[in-house]
Amino acid sequence: MSFNTFGHLFRVTTWGESHGPAIGATVDGCPPGVPLDAAALQVWLDKRKPGQSKFTTQRREADAVEILSGVFEGATTGTPIQLMIANTDQRSKDYGDIAEKFRPGHADITYWQKYGIRDYRGGGRSSARETAARVAAGGIARAAIAKLLPDAKITGYMVQMGPHAIDHARCDADEIQRNPFWVPDAKAAEDWAGYLDELRKSGNSVGAIIEVCASGFPAGLGAPVYGKLDTDLAAAMMSINAVKGVEIGEGMAAAALTGADNADEIAMGPDGPIYNSNHAGGILGGISTGQDIIVRFAVKPTSSILTPRKTITKAGEPTEIVTKGRHDPCVGIRAVPVAEAMAACVLLDHLLLDRGQTGGVRGPIG
Amino acid sequence: MSFNTFGHLFRVTTWGESHGPAIGATVDGCPPGVPLDAAALQVWLDKRKPGQSKFTTQRREADAVEILSGVFEGATTGTPIQLMIANTDQRSKDYGDIAEKFRPGHADITYWQKYGIRDYRGGGRSSARETAARVAAGGIARAAIAKLLPDAKITGYMVQMGPHAIDHARCDADEIQRNPFWVPDAKAAEDWAGYLDELRKSGNSVGAIIEVCASGFPAGLGAPVYGKLDTDLAAAMMSINAVKGVEIGEGMAAAALTGADNADEIAMGPDGPIYNSNHAGGILGGISTGQDIIVRFAVKPTSSILTPRKTITKAGEPTEIVTKGRHDPCVGIRAVPVAEAMAACVLLDHLLLDRGQTGGVRGPIG
Amino acid sequence: MSFNTFGHLFRVTTWGESHGPAIGATVDGCPPGVPLDAAALQVWLDKRKPGQSKFTTQRREADAVEILSGVFEGATTGTPIQLMIANTDQRSKDYGDIAEKFRPGHADITYWQKYGIRDYRGGGRSSARETAARVAAGGIARAAIAKLLPDAKITGYMVQMGPHAIDHARCDADEIQRNPFWVPDAKAAEDWAGYLDELRKSGNSVGAIIEVCASGFPAGLGAPVYGKLDTDLAAAMMSINAVKGVEIGEGMAAAALTGADNADEIAMGPDGPIYNSNHAGGILGGISTGQDIIVRFAVKPTSSILTPRKTITKAGEPTEIVTKGRHDPCVGIRAVPVAEAMAACVLLDHLLLDRGQTGGVRGPIG
Amino acid sequence: MSFNTFGHLFRVTTWGESHGPAIGATVDGCPPGVPLDAAALQVWLDKRKPGQSKFTTQRREADAVEILSGVFEGATTGTPIQLMIANTDQRSKDYGDIAEKFRPGHADITYWQKYGIRDYRGGGRSSARETAARVAAGGIARAAIAKLLPDAKITGYMVQMGPHAIDHARCDADEIQRNPFWVPDAKAAEDWAGYLDELRKSGNSVGAIIEVCASGFPAGLGAPVYGKLDTDLAAAMMSINAVKGVEIGEGMAAAALTGADNADEIAMGPDGPIYNSNHAGGILGGISTGQDIIVRFAVKPTSSILTPRKTITKAGEPTEIVTKGRHDPCVGIRAVPVAEAMAACVLLDHLLLDRGQTGGVRGPIG
Repeated sequence: MSFNTFGHLFRVTTWGESHGPAIGATVDGCPPGVPLDAAALQVWLDKRKPGQSKFTTQRREADAVEILSGVFEGATTGTPIQLMIANTDQRSKDYGDIAEKFRPGHADITYWQKYGIRDYRGGGRSSARETAARVAAGGIARAAIAKLLPDAKITGYMVQMGPHAIDHARCDADEIQRNPFWVPDAKAAEDWAGYLDELRKSGNSVGAIIEVCASGFPAGLGAPVYGKLDTDLAAAMMSINAVKGVEIGEGMAAAALTGADNADEIAMGPDGPIYNSNHAGGILGGISTGQDIIVRFAVKPTSSILTPRKTITKAGEPTEIVTKGRHDPCVGIRAVPVAEAMAACVLLDHLLLDRGQTGGVRGPIG
Repeated sequence: MSFNTFGHLFRVTTWGESHGPAIGATVDGCPPGVPLDAAALQVWLDKRKPGQSKFTTQRREADAVEILSGVFEGATTGTPIQLMIANTDQRSKDYGDIAEKFRPGHADITYWQKYGIRDYRGGGRSSARETAARVAAGGIARAAIAKLLPDAKITGYMVQMGPHAIDHARCDADEIQRNPFWVPDAKAAEDWAGYLDELRKSGNSVGAIIEVCASGFPAGLGAPVYGKLDTDLAAAMMSINAVKGVEIGEGMAAAALTGADNADEIAMGPDGPIYNSNHAGGILGGISTGQDIIVRFAVKPTSSILTPRKTITKAGEPTEIVTKGRHDPCVGIRAVPVAEAMAACVLLDHLLLDRGQTGGVRGPIG
Repeated sequence: MSFNTFGHLFRVTTWGESHGPAIGATVDGCPPGVPLDAAALQVWLDKRKPGQSKFTTQRREADAVEILSGVFEGATTGTPIQLMIANTDQRSKDYGDIAEKFRPGHADITYWQKYGIRDYRGGGRSSARETAARVAAGGIARAAIAKLLPDAKITGYMVQMGPHAIDHARCDADEIQRNPFWVPDAKAAEDWAGYLDELRKSGNSVGAIIEVCASGFPAGLGAPVYGKLDTDLAAAMMSINAVKGVEIGEGMAAAALTGADNADEIAMGPDGPIYNSNHAGGILGGISTGQDIIVRFAVKPTSSILTPRKTITKAGEPTEIVTKGRHDPCVGIRAVPVAEAMAACVLLDHLLLDRGQTGGVRGPIG
Repeated sequence: MSFNTFGHLFRVTTWGESHGPAIGATVDGCPPGVPLDAAALQVWLDKRKPGQSKFTTQRREADAVEILSGVFEGATTGTPIQLMIANTDQRSKDYGDIAEKFRPGHADITYWQKYGIRDYRGGGRSSARETAARVAAGGIARAAIAKLLPDAKITGYMVQMGPHAIDHARCDADEIQRNPFWVPDAKAAEDWAGYLDELRKSGNSVGAIIEVCASGFPAGLGAPVYGKLDTDLAAAMMSINAVKGVEIGEGMAAAALTGADNADEIAMGPDGPIYNSNHAGGILGGISTGQDIIVRFAVKPTSSILTPRKTITKAGEPTEIVTKGRHDPCVGIRAVPVAEAMAACVLLDHLLLDRGQTGGVRGPIG
C-alpha cells in the first residue's frame, strides 16, 4: 500500500495541505449504483467543520465538497470518485514564526529531516485539515453501506476528556447530538464545558478518548491473521493525527482479566448465535461475530499551545516557541466524525473483500 | 495487501495450521547479501518455543526452521526466502470435543460462519503456533537490520501480568533474560511466578501487557498519513493473536495529559537534535524522531480454560465446554519474542521504503 | 493494486471522465526536492493536445494542468501531488445517439453489463481524454528521473501506420519533432499524410505501431519473476486505450529466430559490459542490462467511424449506428506522448524500488 | 505488488531456485469449500513435466506436488495454501562453467549486477523450473473456477514454431492432446517434429508462439483503465520466462486494420448479446464481453545452445561459452501448460474482484 492510501478493494487516497489551494480524496473501488451527491457528503463535513463552538479552532473554512468524477445522474458509476474541498481561509501570516523553528510535539522536525523540504505555512499533511477529506470519503462509504446493509449504524462519541471519563450509567445515545463534545452523558457535557473553557483561556490543551460503535454488521467480516478486521480498524484509527493508542473491546484492560471473566459465552438466538457479553468488541480471531463492533482510541493534547516550550531552529540554535495560530483546545472533539468515517471505510472495504472471497455465504448454524 | 501478508517492500506471508504437516513464512524483498543461515533464525525460535517452563504450554515442538530458498553460500540472494517449520507434536486427539462445539473467546465460530469449513483439530490459522513463522521471519529482518544499522536494538519485555504492573524504579535490562517472563523487574518476576502458578493450577488464565523498545533507528522513517510508522507498528501488533489494544509512547494515557505536559522539548545534541522527554514514543506525525521507538500492547487471557463455559453446537443446541488441551496460562509470555519479530519486520520495511523514496538523505539541522 | 492505480513506490491514480467537470491524477511517492511547476508539465500536455493538426480530433481542450498539492516553492515535498485538468469543451450533444445504442468496438456494452450504469455522454473512463492525466503524471516522473539520471532519455515514435511501416535506413531522430506523426522517417511522414487524409475523409480510421526507446538507464532495474521490468512496461502499455499487443526487443518476431541468432553477445567496454546487439530490448530475466530499453505496441483503429455498423439497443433491439463525434482517424498519433509518459512512470518506479531493496549498489564486473 | 507475487484477491507468490531443496507457491485468497487434493494438481504438473519426449529437456524431475496447508478434508479452507515441489534431480556439476562466465541471453549478468550474488548452479529464479510452481497454483485456480463456472474452459496450444505457423483451416481441438507440441494442426505436428529434431541435433534452439483461449467466462470481468483484464493477462504472460511479446485478439496485426474492418458488430442472441466476429479477443475497454478471451505470446529461443558465443567473465575478461546443460530446443512447448495456469489465475482473480465490487450483478440488456 502506498503512503497516502488505505483500503484494499475500497481504496481512499487523500491529498493536499492546509495552505495549498485545496485538499481532497480519490476514492476507488466503490460499488456502482450507489445513490450519491455532494449534499449527502456535506452533512458529514458540517459535523466536523471547525468554528462551530468556542471549543474548536476559529479557523473558518466553508469545507464545501465538490464531486469531480465517478458520479453520474445521482449514482456512483464504479469508477474513481474525486472529491475536492477548496481551502478558503489560509491566513498564512499566523504561522510565520514556525518557518525557522520546530514546534515540539509537531511533525515539523521529522518532515524536515525526512524530506529536506517542508511547507512551513502550516502542518502540511499533518494538519487536522487533512481529516476533512477522510470525512468526505467516509460519506461515500456510508452511502454504499446503506445500500448493502440498510440497518447498519456507525456512531462515534467521546468517552473521556483529559482525566474526566463519562459515567456509563448516565449515558443516552440521543444526547450525543445535543452537545459540542459528542458525549452521551449530559452531566459530563456540562462538566467538560467548564473544564475545557478554563484550559482554553490558559492557552493549554488536553487529550481525549473516543469510541466508535458499529452495529448491524454481519458475522464473517475480516480474516484470521494480517487481514484481521481489528488490524485494519486499528491502523485506520492510528492513522488519524495525534492518536497514540487504539483498543478493541476490552482493549488494554483485557490484560488484567482472567480467562473465566473474559470469555463471551454463546447462546442461540432467534436469528443465530447471540453472546452474553461483548468483551471481544465484536471481533474474534480477526473476524466479526455479528455483535456491536467497538473500537476506542486516545488523542493526545494539541501541541500548539501558548505556554513557551524549548526548541531549536533549523540552524540548530536553542530557542523558545509559542504557537499562536487558531487551534483546538481539545482536538479530540473533531476526531469524532473522522473516526466514524474511518470505521465506515474499513467496514465497507471488508464487506467487499468478504463478498469477493466467499460470495457472502455464511456457514450454517442450527 | 492480501489476507496473510504484511509489509510493503519487505513482505512476509505466513502459512500453515497447527495440525497440518508444517507451517512457515514466505519472505520477499529482503536485501541481497545479508549473512544468513538456519542457525541464526533458530536462536529466535528457541526463545519462543513452548514447553520451556511450567508457564507455557506443554505441547512440545522442535520448532526447527529450514530455509528452502533465497539463501546461497551463507547470504540472502534478494529472491524469496521460504521458511518451513515441521509440525511434530500434533496430538489431535486432545481436541476432539471442539469439532462440534464452538469455544467461547476463540475464532471457532467466526471461522465457521465465514468459511463454512474449519480445521477443528486446533485453532487453525489462529493458533499461537502461527507466530513461530513470524519469529523466523523476524530473524531475517534482524539480520538485514544488523547489516544496515549495526547499533540498532529491538527488545521486548512484559510490563504487566494480570493486574500486576512492574515498578520502573526496579527495572534492569539485564534482568529480562533471567526469568521466564521476560520482565526487567526481578521482584515482579518473583511475585508473578507465584500468582501465575496458582492461576494455572485452577485452570484459569490471565492477560498481560508487553512493551517493545527499538533503539538506534534514524529519524525520518515513516510517512505523514496512512503510511505512518506508528500505523504499521499498530497493525503489526494488533495482528498477533489475542491482542486487544496497542499504544505508542504515552498511549491511552495521553488522553489525560495537557499539551504543556506532553510536548517533548527539543535541544541540540552533539550528533543532532535531542529531546528532553519521550512522550511521543519516538514518532512525530508518523515519522521517527531518532529517539527510542516505544510500542506497547495488551494480550487478553487465553480462552482455553478448565472452567466450563456456556456455548452452542454447530446444530445450534446449547451446551457447555471445557477446553482441555495443553495451553498457556498467560499467552503474553510467548508474545514477547513475537512482538520483537513484528517490530523488526516493520522497521526494516520502513528503512527500505525510506531509502527508496528519499535515498536516505536527511534534511540538515545545524 | 486497485482498479485505477499503477506503480509500486511511485504510484499514479487517474480519475475523471471526458464529460465531467475535470480529469486528473493523484501521484504518490514522488521523491522530495524535485524541481517542478505546472509549466514543466504543460510542455508534455501540449505535445498530446488534440486539435493540433487535421489528423487529430477537432475537440479543443485547453488541457491546462493545475498542481493542487505536493509542490512547495518550486519543488516536490514528497507528499501526494494532485493534478487537475478542467474539461472545457464538452459539447455533449454530439453524443446523444449513443445513450441507447452500444457502439461496436467501444466499451459501452461492457461498462453497462459490469456496472449497470454508464456515462453515455462520452467514453467515460475509456475516453482518450483519460490519457491527458497520464501525460501530466509522466511529466512528474520525467522531472524526478532528470534529477537522478541527468543523461536518461525517453523517446516515443510511430513505426507503422496501417500497413505502412517505416524504413529504418531512412530514420533520423531529429525528424520526430518535425511532423504530425512523430515518425523518424521523413518519407514515411509524407506518405502517411496522404494516406491518412483519404481515410479521414472517408470516415474510416486505422491502427498504428508505436515504439518507445529509453536510454541512459542503469543495469539492475527490475526483478526476476513477477516484478519484471518488462512485465510492468507491458502492463503499462496494455493499459492505454485501444492497445492490443505489446513487445519488448524482438517481440513477436523472436518466435521465428534461432538461439544462435537471438543471443546478444557480451564484450567489455570502457565503463562496463557492452553488447554486440540488442535483440533482448535491454532486458534480460526481467532486469535491465544498461542497453536501450525498447518497448513497442499496437493500437487498434478508432472504433468511432462514419460507416454504419450493426449493433443493439439497451432494450436488446437490433439497430445500426454511425458515430459522428469528433474523433481521431489514427488514435495512435496521440498515443506517442502517452507511451513516453507511461514508460517514464514505470522506469522511475523501478529506480526507486531498486534503490529501496539494494541501495542501488551494483555487483562489480572487471 | 511485491517482486514475486501476482494477483489481487487471489494471490500467488512463487519461491525457490532450480538447485535448492524445493520450489513452490504460496496461494492466498482462494475461496473456501473448493474440492482439492494433491492428485488434482498433479494432473497439470504432469502435462508440463520435462523429459516426456525428446523435444523437452532430459532433466528428470518427479515434480510431485505436496499441499502443506490450507486444505482440510478434501476442500480449501480459505486460508493460505502452501504448495511444495522437491527438487530431486539437481546434477549441479553440469553447470560448473557458468560460475565465472555470463551466458549471453541469460539473466546471469543482470542478476549479478543487481544483487551482487547469484546462484551460479542454474538459472536461479529465472530457471524454467519456477514455472512448475505456477502450474500447481493454476490447478487451484482451475478447481475454484470449476466450482463457480462449471462450463468454463481454458485451453492453450502452439500456433507457431520458429517460422512455421499452423494452418487454421486444418485445426481440430482434439488434436492438441495427441502430439508433443500441443498443436491443433496434425500436419504441423508432423512437420515440426522433423524441423525441431534437426535443430536439436545441431545444438540450436528456436522460438514459438502460444495462444490461450478461455471460454465460458461472463461479460463484466475487468475494469476500465489500469485494472483491465487484458492488462493483467498481458502482465501474467510477460512474466513467463523468455516471453518477448503479448497480444490480445488481433494483437499487433490490429495496427494494419481499418476501423470498419475491426469493429465486432453486435446482435442479440437467445441468452444476451452476441458478436459477429472477435477481433477484440473478448475484451472491450478492459472488460470481458462474454466471448472467447484470446491471448497470444511469443517465446524467444532458449539461450542455452551448443554454438559457442562471445561473452565476458566476472573479472571482465573476454571469453567464449557453450552451454552444455540439458535444455529444451523449443522452450515454448512447456510454456503451454504454464500459460493455461497463468490465465486461470488471472481469470479467477477477476471473478473474485468483480464479485467484490459489483456483487456479480449485470446491467440488463433486452
